[in-house]
Order: sequence, then C-alpha cells, then structure tokens
Amino acid sequence: MSELRQDPISGQWVIMAPERAGRPDDFERESGARPQGECPFCAGHEYLTSTPLLELPAHPTTRTGWQIRVLPNKYPAVSSNVGQTFLSADSPTPAFGQHEVVVESPQHLLSVTQLEPQQFADVVRVYRDRLRTLKEDRRLRCALVFKNMGLAGGATLQHVHSQIVALSTVPDRLRAELCGSAEWLKRHGSCPYCAMIAREQAEGVRLVAETESLLAISPYAARMPYETWILPRQHASQFEDLSDSAARELAGLLQRVLTPIETVCGSGHHSTVAYNYLIHSAPFDTPPCDHYHWHVEIIPRMTRLAGFEWGTGWHINPVTPEAATQRLRKLLGQVD
Amino acid sequence: MSELRQDPISGQWVIMAPERAGRPDDFERESGARPQGECPFCAGHEYLTSTPLLELPAHPTTRTGWQIRVLPNKYPAVSSNVGQTFLSADSPTPAFGQHEVVVESPQHLLSVTQLEPQQFADVVRVYRDRLRTLKEDRRLRCALVFKNMGLAGGATLQHVHSQIVALSTVPDRLRAELCGSAEWLKRHGSCPYCAMIAREQAEGVRLVAETESLLAISPYAARMPYETWILPRQHASQFEDLSDSAARELAGLLQRVLTPIETVCGSGHHSTVAYNYLIHSAPFDTPPCDHYHWHVEIIPRMTRLAGFEWGTGWHINPVTPEAATQRLRKLLGQVD
Repeated sequence: MSELRQDPISGQWVIMAPERAGRPDDFERESGARPQGECPFCAGHEYLTSTPLLELPAHPTTRTGWQIRVLPNKYPAVSSNVGQTFLSADSPTPAFGQHEVVVESPQHLLSVTQLEPQQFADVVRVYRDRLRTLKEDRRLRCALVFKNMGLAGGATLQHVHSQIVALSTVPDRLRAELCGSAEWLKRHGSCPYCAMIAREQAEGVRLVAETESLLAISPYAARMPYETWILPRQHASQFEDLSDSAARELAGLLQRVLTPIETVCGSGHHSTVAYNYLIHSAPFDTPPCDHYHWHVEIIPRMTRLAGFEWGTGWHINPVTPEAATQRLRKLLGQVD
Repeated sequence: MSELRQDPISGQWVIMAPERAGRPDDFERESGARPQGECPFCAGHEYLTSTPLLELPAHPTTRTGWQIRVLPNKYPAVSSNVGQTFLSADSPTPAFGQHEVVVESPQHLLSVTQLEPQQFADVVRVYRDRLRTLKEDRRLRCALVFKNMGLAGGATLQHVHSQIVALSTVPDRLRAELCGSAEWLKRHGSCPYCAMIAREQAEGVRLVAETESLLAISPYAARMPYETWILPRQHASQFEDLSDSAARELAGLLQRVLTPIETVCGSGHHSTVAYNYLIHSAPFDTPPCDHYHWHVEIIPRMTRLAGFEWGTGWHINPVTPEAATQRLRKLLGQVD
C-alpha cells in the first residue's frame, strides 16, 4: 500500500510506493531491450496481465482479438483498495486513487507515430472514455493521462502504452494552473489560455501547426527544448467532453507534431526518443468554467534536470521556443 | 545573454539560455568519456579556461601550482554582464546573476569521496568563501552551491567539480522553504528544522549518521531513494557563517555518507553514480533568523522524473526513508 507524505516545510507531496521497486525495466537490462517474446503487452501474452478494465475489440481485418486494452497498473503508485487499517488518527495517509495502463496496440510498436491514424484516434477516444468512467466514482476528484516515452521519459516497458492516474486530491501542478488562471480571469476578464491562443495566432513566431479546431504552439516560457502544447481554439475546461470527431482531429495533430519532435530529440530511431505528453484537464467536480482550458503538453526530455533545477525550482532551456518553432515548422514542411 | 521568462498561468520561471546549447558533454560522446588529455579542468590545461576568480595554491608537496580553482562558468545560465540593451519597457528580462565552477582537484578524479579529507575540507571552505565574496555584491540576493554528479545528475564534465549560482531574485524553492518555515515558527514557536532534528534524534529510524555538531538524516518526505540531508544541530540560517572547524566537520560527514550512497546508487564505479548535492542557505540580505536553518540536501538520481511528476508536481519514491536509513547504516557499519 502506498503512503502519502508531505514535507512540513516546503509542502512537497511524495508518494512512498515500495511495491514499485520491483518493476521490470526494459531499459536497464544489460543486454538492451527485453526479448519481444516476453513483452506482457503483446497479443498472445494476455495471461501475463490481469483482467482488463476496458477492451476495444479488434477490427475484423486483424488477427488479434483486441485492438486496445486498459489494464490496472501492476505496480500502482496509488490504490483504490484501501482497507480499514488506516483509520486511526496517527496512522499513515494511504495514497488513494486508481492507476491504469492503456496498451495502445496489440503489436510490439514503440511509438504512437507508428500507429494507423484510425488506431490512434481510437486510443484518444479510450483516454476520454476512461475519464468519463472514472468521473462516476465520487471519491476521485481528477485524472491525469500521460505518456512516458523512452528511458529518459521514465518508461520501463517499450511496448507503446500510456497511463492514467485518478486521484482523490487535486495535485499541486493542476492547483497552480487553476489558481493562476482564475487570478488572470479576475484581472483581465478572459481565460488566459484563450488569450494565449489569440496572441500566438497574431504573432505567429511560436505557432507550430494548426487544424480547424486546434492549435499547436511552443509556449512562451517553454521549460524544455521543443516543448509543444496543443489547445482547442474553442474554450472548454474538461477533456472528457471531447466529441468523437474532435478526438480524431486531436490524434491527427498529435501524430503530426510528434513526428518532427521524434526526429529532433532522437537519432531517428524510436528506441532512443524520450518525451512525455500529458493531458491537462479541470477536476471532475469543477463545473465547466471560464478560466481553465484543457490542453495537451508534450515535453521532450533532451536535457536533464540538474542541481540548479532541484535547488531553485526554475528550469534552464537552451532552445528558445521561437527557435524550436522554426525548426519544427521546417521539418513539417511549412517553411523553407 | 540569457533571458528570464515566467509562465503567466503556473508562475513557473525559465531561463532561456541558447549559449548553453554548445556545451561539451563527456557523457554523450559515442566513444564514452573524453580523453583525459583534453579535460579542461586538469592541471596543465589552464590555457583552456579563463582567469580564475579564486585559486588556492597547492600544498608544497604536490607538483601542480594550485589545489582548487574557481572559474567563471564558460556556458553561464545567468550573467552579471548585462548591458544597456535591456532598458526599454517591453524588452526581455535578462537573467542576472553570477555562475561559477569550483574545480575541486588538479587531478582527474571523479568524486569528492576520492579526495583527501584535508582537500575536501578546503573545498567546503572555498564554497563558504565564495559566498562571502558574492554577498558583498549588493545586486545579488542569494547563492546556491550545487554538485551535479554523473550523467543522470546533469553533469557534462566528469572531472570533480561543483557550481555556484548567485541570483538577484530569491528562487521559488528557497522562497517556499522560507515561507513554510516562517509559517511553522508562527504556529509552533520553533524553527521547523530544529524540531526535525529533535524528532529524528528521539525516534532514530531516519538517523543515518551524526557527529558532534551535525546530523545526517533521511527526510520524512524523501523525494528520491536514499535522499539524505545534513543539518547543523545548532540553529544557524547562513551557511557562509560556517567556521573553519565546522567546514572540516561537514566535509568529513559528507564524504562519510556519500560513500554508501555511491555504493547503493552506482554499480561500484564512480562513472556510473549519479546524484546532486545542494547547500540550502538563507538569502544574503536576511538578518540571521529564527525560522530558517541552513542544510545540505543529497539527492541520488536513481529514479527518473516521468509524466506523473511533470503533471502533478508530486514525487513517487519506491524506497521509504526508513528502509533507506537501515541500508545506509548497515553500509556504514553502524548496525549488523
């Protein structure tokens, strides 16, 4: 059982999760990647994992029985299975929540850029559908969908997958965004993300790509080289309200911008690429609101967080978002 | 020239430092480490670096002319050389400060645990003396001494060295500690670090080692496996007020606890070990205060920050500080 602890001075929260020490690790094997024959996420190896929480049946043309599977994480950081042992006043605080894995293909692929567009559109729909289901559990206040890609991205298995963590508390990062955006609304009378969209469209220097209803930008205060955000043009606070067609459009744009990002931050091989992407969405119990705007943050992991970042809480980014935009647009074939 | 940017919503600060993209990197060379013959920090290669800010002459017994050198960082994240170009209202904010490198041996050693005790005591004295000098510059409000050890620790050169960054602003992490500790003092009537020392001594389960005037503990909400803090028993807010004998004692305890940490987080070879250590000290312009207590944080870098940490601002630690203490004490030979 994981335990939640807070530093009494800095306020930093930490989940103590001793069970996770036993995780398998494709990347730390001396001999390189795990033999594909042992991958627990591949079709045919379903006996290695528990009963799925959701299984999308395969298209009739494929040979496997399923197309996407959502599994309970075998090494959960948080757990909904909190017993009666924690009821005394001075007992540890259990880390309550639900931790799931989305297996995004029955085949041993490494990146979502290798998926058929329809397959990835279905993956994004599955993210949304899981959030809709988790939202029904009144004990859960919010959920984070995230992808760990590559060793430096924190992945332990190479087979293409994402994770969903639902929590009973709003975590610090989301709380900071909610407070900061509410503050902005009060001062400026608009959603700060809507203001950002208007500014980036007008200025153009940080505009990476756009579709009918979405924008991909390099954020003004990008923490990492080639950090890219995708935002819906139209104000919406909750990702789980996404329509099927918007899910398809988001999947398409994500694949489109991840392709040059993988070129820039890997040596052309998917096994060397490292990034995270995260879906930021308002808590389940927030009524649709004027200040918060759901979005996807793509965070390439080319630079390492060192002592300076640990000591200050600041980031150092050697590639300005304006230079990153130029390079990504060039790779996208949008400029000479 | 580096530029300081703040995310308007989350409040996150980022230093845009395009100059740092050109840094050399011992770890990213395909062929492994840089040939020792090219190391800019080795004795005999002084022509590769600029004029030192401080140079400790060698003991007469050694063959080199110097023992420790403090150099201006060749790829600074912040700079004190801010020109007149930034004076208009809408111009970028320059990242003002001073960025230095402390070369801790004339020999090509990799870790401070390889230094003679007297040599490392002199290194700690140099940290202190540089802070005393930087404090005289009224434009600088605080300084952070930190060590990046190993690839995952963010080091780019292997030759044993640390860094000092002095800033004109109090960074977020230090600000959070100052606010949190002032808040604690108001509520409980004591310095929270002094309270922590009393508790850890009484309970013992997170007490790693102790000397006459210092304590090494695994903090209650450790963010990383084997994270270890060193604190002076006697309340003191400013590291730069350290006496010579206290500097010697600190160097000794740091070497003593870093030895088992290097065993635990490396495979016994210094080139595979990764950690950071950081000296947390009150800002220069804080009068000696009752709530803040200088300390050293050692942060081993065995786990990677993944999507969960980026999305929540929380950490996941698979080794509880109680288990970490047991293991470190065993390696220190203090228990069976």
